[in-house]
Amino acid sequence: MATPKSHLVPSRSAKRANYEPETIHSILDEALYCTISYSYENKPFSIPTAFVRYEDKIYIHGSVGSHFIRELEKGIPVCITVTLMDALVVAKSAFNHSVNYRSVVIFAQAEKVESVEDKIEAFKWLTDKIVPGSWDYLRPIKENEVRKTTALAFKIDEASAKIRSGMPVDDEEDEALPIWSGLIPLQNGRMAPLPDKFSEHMPLPAHLVGSL
Amino acid sequence: MATPKSHLVPSRSAKRANYEPETIHSILDEALYCTISYSYENKPFSIPTAFVRYEDKIYIHGSVGSHFIRELEKGIPVCITVTLMDALVVAKSAFNHSVNYRSVVIFAQAEKVESVEDKIEAFKWLTDKIVPGSWDYLRPIKENEVRKTTALAFKIDEASAKIRSGMPVDDEEDEALPIWSGLIPLQNGRMAPLPDKFSEHMPLPAHLVGSL
Repeated sequence: MATPKSHLVPSRSAKRANYEPETIHSILDEALYCTISYSYENKPFSIPTAFVRYEDKIYIHGSVGSHFIRELEKGIPVCITVTLMDALVVAKSAFNHSVNYRSVVIFAQAEKVESVEDKIEAFKWLTDKIVPGSWDYLRPIKENEVRKTTALAFKIDEASAKIRSGMPVDDEEDEALPIWSGLIPLQNGRMAPLPDKFSEHMPLPAHLVGSL
Repeated sequence: MATPKSHLVPSRSAKRANYEPETIHSILDEALYCTISYSYENKPFSIPTAFVRYEDKIYIHGSVGSHFIRELEKGIPVCITVTLMDALVVAKSAFNHSVNYRSVVIFAQAEKVESVEDKIEAFKWLTDKIVPGSWDYLRPIKENEVRKTTALAFKIDEASAKIRSGMPVDDEEDEALPIWSGLIPLQNGRMAPLPDKFSEHMPLPAHLVGSL
């Protein structure tokens, strides 16, 4: 069994915490969503949402009417986590089972992106992260769409990554047991695009062909 | 762009919240980890961890020395989220982009699993979830391993699921635009097991062959 991956304090079986921006950025850039938690009247809430990292900030967006967004834009403290699961680590005992993962935790508070130009830039980064190269191809964003959407930025300041990789670590006295041990790698990726009824007879645009 | 999936309150573009236990259970059973958030001195913390659902409870485990576990076992309020990403929803405008996902949010507090027998049962469920059928095959758990590990249960009482599925929904006036729209399905699965150096010449056990 895996011991939990506490981001707070070193524990008995702590995986190395890593504070290198390159490591933290590479995990953030690979993840499609983050989970944002905050306290409201002393109760914890957490919500998954799309995000993009640009330079030393994370950007999210949402409806101006969303309670989540309106709570966050006050600048309250949030905890943002991102988790990538790479493999199940199968040991010879349940106790030594684990998971190969890469995770990031960020403590921050939102800064509202105020100007229309900056908002549009954040929306471009968000869209191009989900479908690289698509922003310039799409129907241009409209003024009222920008107006209806809030963009929030979070500085990646107080952040750390945790990574477990490699094979299981069994107890020495278990190593010779005739029990299979190793990894079950996990698949993460994009499959071939499926057109909707308006695009059935349309060739895939180049940026989507390239994304496979 | 997707509007965020607030679990708290209906929003302008709320996806249907679902409170059916079967729906909630099926999402929980498919997910390999959950993110647990809690407040500590008014600051939010969140941590990804393995879990299993058994009947109407979720079980997690961790080192008895872990600060995370010791905080949770006090019975403080937690928010548990699980997110499965099914597809990127590519619309003709950035604004109508979305994500097909299935998520669950649970508000609960931990109950510590006290007896050795109940703890072992929880560890069996956890292990058999990660690698189905493996518990009876592995080196049996030892008394000191049970002693070193805390098991916590959370009742799935205050819980809801949210699901978005299907094709993009574009603005009517955009439908005829020569812009590709559709889905990019996301891959999630297990790949062929990779043996470690102790298992290289060992045939895969039947329960691992079956898991592919």
